[in-house]
Amino acid sequence: MDRAAFLAELDACREAVEAELRRQLPAADEAPTDLHAALRYCVEAGGKRLRPVLLCKVAGALGATVDPLPAAAAVECLHSYSLVHDDLPAMDNSDLRRGRPACHRAYDEATAILAGDALLTLAFEILATEYPDPPGLAGLLVAELATAAGSRQLVGGQAMDLAVNGQVASAAELAAINERKTGALFAACTAMGAILAGAAPPQRESWRTVGHELGAAFQAIDDVLDATASAEETGKTAGQDATNLKNTLVALEGVEATRRRAHHHTEEARRQLDLLLPDGDFLREMLAYLRERTH
Amino acid sequence: MDRAAFLAELDACREAVEAELRRQLPAADEAPTDLHAALRYCVEAGGKRLRPVLLCKVAGALGATVDPLPAAAAVECLHSYSLVHDDLPAMDNSDLRRGRPACHRAYDEATAILAGDALLTLAFEILATEYPDPPGLAGLLVAELATAAGSRQLVGGQAMDLAVNGQVASAAELAAINERKTGALFAACTAMGAILAGAAPPQRESWRTVGHELGAAFQAIDDVLDATASAEETGKTAGQDATNLKNTLVALEGVEATRRRAHHHTEEARRQLDLLLPDGDFLREMLAYLRERTH
Repeated sequence: MDRAAFLAELDACREAVEAELRRQLPAADEAPTDLHAALRYCVEAGGKRLRPVLLCKVAGALGATVDPLPAAAAVECLHSYSLVHDDLPAMDNSDLRRGRPACHRAYDEATAILAGDALLTLAFEILATEYPDPPGLAGLLVAELATAAGSRQLVGGQAMDLAVNGQVASAAELAAINERKTGALFAACTAMGAILAGAAPPQRESWRTVGHELGAAFQAIDDVLDATASAEETGKTAGQDATNLKNTLVALEGVEATRRRAHHHTEEARRQLDLLLPDGDFLREMLAYLRERTH
Repeated sequence: MDRAAFLAELDACREAVEAELRRQLPAADEAPTDLHAALRYCVEAGGKRLRPVLLCKVAGALGATVDPLPAAAAVECLHSYSLVHDDLPAMDNSDLRRGRPACHRAYDEATAILAGDALLTLAFEILATEYPDPPGLAGLLVAELATAAGSRQLVGGQAMDLAVNGQVASAAELAAINERKTGALFAACTAMGAILAGAAPPQRESWRTVGHELGAAFQAIDDVLDATASAEETGKTAGQDATNLKNTLVALEGVEATRRRAHHHTEEARRQLDLLLPDGDFLREMLAYLRERTH
């Protein structure tokens, strides 16, 4: 698959995910209107939709016969919730997200807390209501996503990140944070794609590994971009992580070593992918695309 | 069943729920330790555990053969999350909860936000992982709880409550808030008890009605107690709702009318219960107990 064909397929999948999100979210004029408008504001802010696309494409490559789009919308709701809560004044205190005011700036802090809570809850409601068949599927999907989002993974990573803030984190600490804050949700996406296709537990575990490697590569590239790209390219203030004394891979080991790290993890993901899926063209092209992205 | 036998059974069930909560929560010394200590602080703060007891007793009265305790622990995690987030400075700004510092006072605001997020997530993780059999059960339980907790119900009720704060709410507004903030979770508990016993959709709906009536009675009594009881009895500052210009049933219609309202809803719940369950002794005694409680 060449880059142009990949980009066309990526766009098509992203649009399908966004249409599904619009279908799943309550209308902005449904009471309570401020809350529902805030939900749509947070979710419709754009973003690359890489996690839901990844889920859909793993499901498709493995021949899933159930529709992956509701599950893809669920993981995007969960991702959006984590961004809304991370941006809060008591957390990272970020005023901008994707080039627009963060939710607590566009609305208010209480609405942002509640919008995050509602998006997190909606993620599980979608999984539980949209996958009644085959029986047991909904439970597996909820278990996968809830485990990845819980206090040992996603939420735990944010807690660890806040705990080291203002201090210099060790490489081990930073790896533990990134695995939880980024890797866990990427792993849930690849595993949920496999679950939708009926994969057995050992295959699910292999797909989690692919997701973790992808997440590690993604995070390394994100840190490089934050340190080097202009505000226009990233939609946030350039060098913001450095200004806030945030612990990043670039702060710890420099731009070049972080780029090499991204390369290493993409290669690991590709190696796993070759074992799991001899003809996963889109996913292999996605690895290259992720490694080369500039925003 | 006389009151003494009821109280003994209530205590036994409450203790079983608390043991299950201790089993489900990560250890306080598991990393990230601050977060996990905060989770236990919030959940182990006591409280009457009425919601999980209700779930267990409905399941038991209907002859459920699966263990209701994990589901009971899940609803208590969800209830605890809603209290932790409601107490935050940006929300109700309450420093005390059950006679102890609120989570954001005992820890900090970021930890309280994350502890709430983690408890909400854990509720769904418990349901999805503890009920693999019969296949489909986990999905029904998650759907019931997520719907009750979402932006149209629990979270929506909190948003509506904040929206009318500082103004005088109408009776219709207050009813809409109470149905969502209190009724929805009581209804989810009775419905989940029925789901555990394999109830068909029409029965689940009848059990939701019982829960809604119970929730309405509970809220009316809570408002009366807040207006009349001493701080020692309620574990919070007496008359706190009035001081903060909170909209309550007592503020709207006075103590006596609110007491009559509680009586009306308990009678409605009893009437439904008589139709559904000719020999639900514990549940009938629980209605009387709820109506007469003083804290």
